Amino acid sequence: MNLFDLGERKIIEELKKLYGTIVDDDSYYFAEGKDYILITTDVITKKTHIPDDVSPELAGYFFASLNFSDIAAMGGRPKYFLTSYSMRIDTDFDFFMEFNRGIKKCIKKYKTKMVGGDTKEGDDFTATGIAVGKVNKNFILLRKNFKQDQVVAVTNSLGKNAAGYYLWKNGMKEGAEKLLEIEPRIEEGIAISKHGAKAAMDLSDGVYSSIDQIKKLTGTGFKIYFDKIPIHPLAFEVSGDLKIPLEEISLNFGGDYELLFSVDRSKWQNLKEKMEKNNFKVSEIGETWKGENILVKEGKEVKIKYHGYEHFTRSTLL
Amino acid sequence: MNLFDLGERKIIEELKKLYGTIVDDDSYYFAEGKDYILITTDVITKKTHIPDDVSPELAGYFFASLNFSDIAAMGGRPKYFLTSYSMRIDTDFDFFMEFNRGIKKCIKKYKTKMVGGDTKEGDDFTATGIAVGKVNKNFILLRKNFKQDQVVAVTNSLGKNAAGYYLWKNGMKEGAEKLLEIEPRIEEGIAISKHGAKAAMDLSDGVYSSIDQIKKLTGTGFKIYFDKIPIHPLAFEVSGDLKIPLEEISLNFGGDYELLFSVDRSKWQNLKEKMEKNNFKVSEIGETWKGENILVKEGKEVKIKYHGYEHFTRSTLL
Repeated sequence: MNLFDLGERKIIEELKKLYGTIVDDDSYYFAEGKDYILITTDVITKKTHIPDDVSPELAGYFFASLNFSDIAAMGGRPKYFLTSYSMRIDTDFDFFMEFNRGIKKCIKKYKTKMVGGDTKEGDDFTATGIAVGKVNKNFILLRKNFKQDQVVAVTNSLGKNAAGYYLWKNGMKEGAEKLLEIEPRIEEGIAISKHGAKAAMDLSDGVYSSIDQIKKLTGTGFKIYFDKIPIHPLAFEVSGDLKIPLEEISLNFGGDYELLFSVDRSKWQNLKEKMEKNNFKVSEIGETWKGENILVKEGKEVKIKYHGYEHFTRSTLL
Repeated sequence: MNLFDLGERKIIEELKKLYGTIVDDDSYYFAEGKDYILITTDVITKKTHIPDDVSPELAGYFFASLNFSDIAAMGGRPKYFLTSYSMRIDTDFDFFMEFNRGIKKCIKKYKTKMVGGDTKEGDDFTATGIAVGKVNKNFILLRKNFKQDQVVAVTNSLGKNAAGYYLWKNGMKEGAEKLLEIEPRIEEGIAISKHGAKAAMDLSDGVYSSIDQIKKLTGTGFKIYFDKIPIHPLAFEVSGDLKIPLEEISLNFGGDYELLFSVDRSKWQNLKEKMEKNNFKVSEIGETWKGENILVKEGKEVKIKYHGYEHFTRSTLL
């Protein structure tokens, strides 16, 4: 049996069984005085994540961002970054340095520091990022804190990255850039936490995947209202041009790295106002409840069937 | 230009220039209350580090050990471990799980905890380890603390792993196991620090490489007395059988992951006695001084020309 036969989720299940540890959140956290230290790791490989049509600098920026995004999803502030490489010996040095200039741009923007790494020979270009962050114990955002009857909201808009992917797959090179252009929502994560949110996760795999995971973890279900989704203009465009359902692009693909979060209804209006005052956009997209995950669209309630991206499965070969 | 043309040290130099950060030690450390938090990362690839002649379990144990070794070299205790994988989709699941059982054995032995990771598709089997540890601020071991006129010592004995390598390269399969059998010297690191040592590093690349790096960093030179080296019995055997200089095997290869450390002469005797009382073996192998790195052998002093292993160079293709 090989990994292809199993799929990523099954692999992770087996590892959890073996190690007996459960890490439910985007980062692991441990207590130090009045704070939690956060630590997370994300890998990208040239094969799977770096289209030839993007600059290595953009790929490097993307790489650092997606690691920081896991800290942002916990309401934390990233402090340190490490990068380990496994690379072919014929890897182009300019490619390598451009990639690192992209990382540097991101760690500089978010005031973090590169503090280590390792380089070894391999048969691919694999970059493993490690982000270390910090959050005051009272302000951590956790998946287990998604509770019933709360407002569900997202930062900014959804669907731009998926739209980029579909453009790219249909021969429009500039789509690849749209796919990889992300920002870790660090200040947003800190701000929502300050104004009462207790639960969040990042939308790396899309809304459907996220709420599926949360439902499994907490039992809390989601009602998502399609007409409330803040859909990115590019998603509308691509949906129309390529005849791809808007729902697929905005909810079932991911790559947005926006934050999905919940907050008690009594705190929502204040949170929204405070965020807007600071030029952060947040949109209510539904509510949590005791039932299944439901999409409300054109007045009808439809049970959400999640069929998102999974590594090590046939779907990733498309 | 590709990485092959540059070699690992040049690559790291370029990265240090780009990021403006200098991490001189085996781990990065940052202050939290009365402690330092330690963090380190080490990569292995199937291609470069996992001979077909060892069990995946041994490879996994080796992999976790070498990460913990970087914490041990700082006088710290490892607390958490994370592993990220990039793997071919046709990676055998049994291989993968055996490898993880090896990791588990090691993290269990050293009372640490697996707290995360990532799995992605790539063209190789790349495992990136991340170890997080802790040390009281007064007991950290740092490379910059190698000072002149101290006793230089090592834990246990040297040359077993190199001997294993040469056996393996000469067709004796069991050599591969000897090459990979290591233990992180965690208790030893903590104990030497408790008894007055302030400086250490692990012998991943051998004594010559280590003292070369320390000399460049601190200006402190080393006089190593060949007849004081605690050479492992297997190194004697292999040296005799395969006609490889004992010096090459015991000092210029590495893979031992023993600790090299220094301590003021006034504290050496006490340290040694206290260590022995706890069944730890330490041996004086020389002293630090203001001059060059010197090997004293058969009464003659010879300047040490370091020519050790470096990734991404022609030598690694041998």
